[in-house]
Amino acid sequence: MKNFEFQNCTKIIFGKDSEEKAGTEIIKYSSKILLHYGGGSIKKYGLYDRVKSCLKKEDIGIVELGGVLPNPRLKLVKKGIELCRQEKIDFILAVGGGSVIDSAKAIAIGVPYKGNVWDFFEEKTKIKESIPIAVILTIPAAGSEVSGASVITNEDGLYKKGVEANIMRPKFSILNPELTFTLGNNQTAIGVADILAHIMERYFTQEKNVDLTDRLCEATFKTLLRNTPVILKENNNYAARAEVMWAGSVAHNDLLDTGRVTDWASHMIEHELSAIYDIAHGEGLAIIFPAWMKYVYKNNIERFAQFGQRIWGVDFHPYDLEGMALEGIKRFEDFLKRIGLKTRLSEISISDDRFKEMAKKCTENGPVGSFVKLGKEDVLNIYNLAK
Amino acid sequence: MKNFEFQNCTKIIFGKDSEEKAGTEIIKYSSKILLHYGGGSIKKYGLYDRVKSCLKKEDIGIVELGGVLPNPRLKLVKKGIELCRQEKIDFILAVGGGSVIDSAKAIAIGVPYKGNVWDFFEEKTKIKESIPIAVILTIPAAGSEVSGASVITNEDGLYKKGVEANIMRPKFSILNPELTFTLGNNQTAIGVADILAHIMERYFTQEKNVDLTDRLCEATFKTLLRNTPVILKENNNYAARAEVMWAGSVAHNDLLDTGRVTDWASHMIEHELSAIYDIAHGEGLAIIFPAWMKYVYKNNIERFAQFGQRIWGVDFHPYDLEGMALEGIKRFEDFLKRIGLKTRLSEISISDDRFKEMAKKCTENGPVGSFVKLGKEDVLNIYNLAK
Repeated sequence: MKNFEFQNCTKIIFGKDSEEKAGTEIIKYSSKILLHYGGGSIKKYGLYDRVKSCLKKEDIGIVELGGVLPNPRLKLVKKGIELCRQEKIDFILAVGGGSVIDSAKAIAIGVPYKGNVWDFFEEKTKIKESIPIAVILTIPAAGSEVSGASVITNEDGLYKKGVEANIMRPKFSILNPELTFTLGNNQTAIGVADILAHIMERYFTQEKNVDLTDRLCEATFKTLLRNTPVILKENNNYAARAEVMWAGSVAHNDLLDTGRVTDWASHMIEHELSAIYDIAHGEGLAIIFPAWMKYVYKNNIERFAQFGQRIWGVDFHPYDLEGMALEGIKRFEDFLKRIGLKTRLSEISISDDRFKEMAKKCTENGPVGSFVKLGKEDVLNIYNLAK
Repeated sequence: MKNFEFQNCTKIIFGKDSEEKAGTEIIKYSSKILLHYGGGSIKKYGLYDRVKSCLKKEDIGIVELGGVLPNPRLKLVKKGIELCRQEKIDFILAVGGGSVIDSAKAIAIGVPYKGNVWDFFEEKTKIKESIPIAVILTIPAAGSEVSGASVITNEDGLYKKGVEANIMRPKFSILNPELTFTLGNNQTAIGVADILAHIMERYFTQEKNVDLTDRLCEATFKTLLRNTPVILKENNNYAARAEVMWAGSVAHNDLLDTGRVTDWASHMIEHELSAIYDIAHGEGLAIIFPAWMKYVYKNNIERFAQFGQRIWGVDFHPYDLEGMALEGIKRFEDFLKRIGLKTRLSEISISDDRFKEMAKKCTENGPVGSFVKLGKEDVLNIYNLAK
């Protein structure tokens, strides 16, 4: 086990009607906030009105900024920063999924910073300050409600980059599984693919002595395998929605990477896809991850055999670990298909035209990943395996 | 899944030589501290000197209070409170196991309180303030390094009582598995029994929809089953010591009880034992828990069958869940014996003389537990099953 530090102060407020606590929690920090959200869905289903009414009960002033798109854009982040400065706002409430939360985090670090907020994403400067943010989560997927990370797309060149700092973790996150009842099956499945990917980016490590975190990863993974098919059949199944929602946060609150080196190559390989083609991150991960697995499994057949046996129940066979590994990968891909996801780029009409360009951009700061370090040619091979 | 709130801000600093970070962490809070510890072991193995030297590097003033005993006493807590007030100390560093940490926490809530600190334990008043504490952990067992709880024994009447408040969680806890190399096998095993009990007090719930936390409990439990026999053979096995140490914290940082109603009857039944006979808490739990299981399993055979199948690998048999349940309980007891623990009161020379008195005291505020509510007669029956 590697030495590590772990601290996650985000307060989780989980359960039915929990969004009604937003006002009493926020008033501990601020009396004037930016209410940040995406499209119309929070208005369509009444959440917008409920949130505003609970904020008004505490006399909290509200300035609104909607319109966050999937793969949130730098332009709106800059608009949010200006708005907060003009209106002297010192708290942001993000109501939505990962894109809204990431956008809120980027605004929050941008407000006290005098330079261009993109500097943080280009690692030109370090994050020292942030105004506090909080979350009402509507889509279990990105895990941004508990993480200190934000991923933003710069429209100028279609760069998608991430930053991370403990100070960026939300002060509190409200998770009401009922708010996810209205998610369509495709959106639900894409979210689950994202959560599974967060677990696997941690699970696939070359560190051998990680027994507890291996098992915690497996526990979280298996919870998703069990509950996802249930909610795809019964959209309003509270118990199963609750499991998926809480698993999404546990997968990404950094407990699962304590003591190990994590990978994140698949995330970076996918970011190139969603930056150019504007697909959902989870949609891309469902395609990239199986390809990545096929490309790298020979570098640690034992770990892939463990993945097959412990998570997928592949029969243990001591003289055929490779067979176990391949069967695990196959069952993973089968599961993605079962929940309605595509696992090949051709199925979402992405051809190989820009593979070279993406592989180059993905590795422009050097090889990606740690399980196996992947250079430009490796990344190109993975895109080709995903064709 | 029940509605819940979860927040645990304790910073974990885990790994080799991590105690050397104590000074640089403490100086963020204070420049004069109470150094609180137990007997001579921290001096014997050089930890005491290393800690003092790293504090001196930061010019941190040190006032010492050693002598914490297992089942920490109110008398020393009161002495610590006086000492902190006299010396104007606003930070406590606990170096030791659960008893030292619990003692430090009780001092920390006592310092700013004008009345008798025992008032908190008798629920006469609520905890509103605490001076901050931090931990260098030497025994993986109590989980107090991440919890907001403290259990203290009042010598006057031999009452052992606990209090809990989020504000009591340590600011940071330093966990270096190397510090546990010198623990004897008996002390190691007793610690593991305590950790297993913390998991089981959460695992045995009547709440059905707790899939993720069930699996996280099972993951943590199985990590201990695998690694404990290893460290009993190889006391200096860093990898296995690290797993047990981190599992001890994960078991008790309150993640494992999110969304469920927990039990804690066995803890309360055991507290009567250790209050009177001054045995180690884990030693008592290894005796009480199997007896409790045998007494209550019929109230939820399904859950005990799951315990048997998922944790102990008992063969699934749909028409004999009771057999699966009983086999699980048997394997649990066998494991305790295998790691060198006694599972009957007679084996540690405790007779039935005071069973009635203990059962009465245990239930003087009403029935204990939630998995099954246990009155005086039930508790008496459990002591008798543990004979």
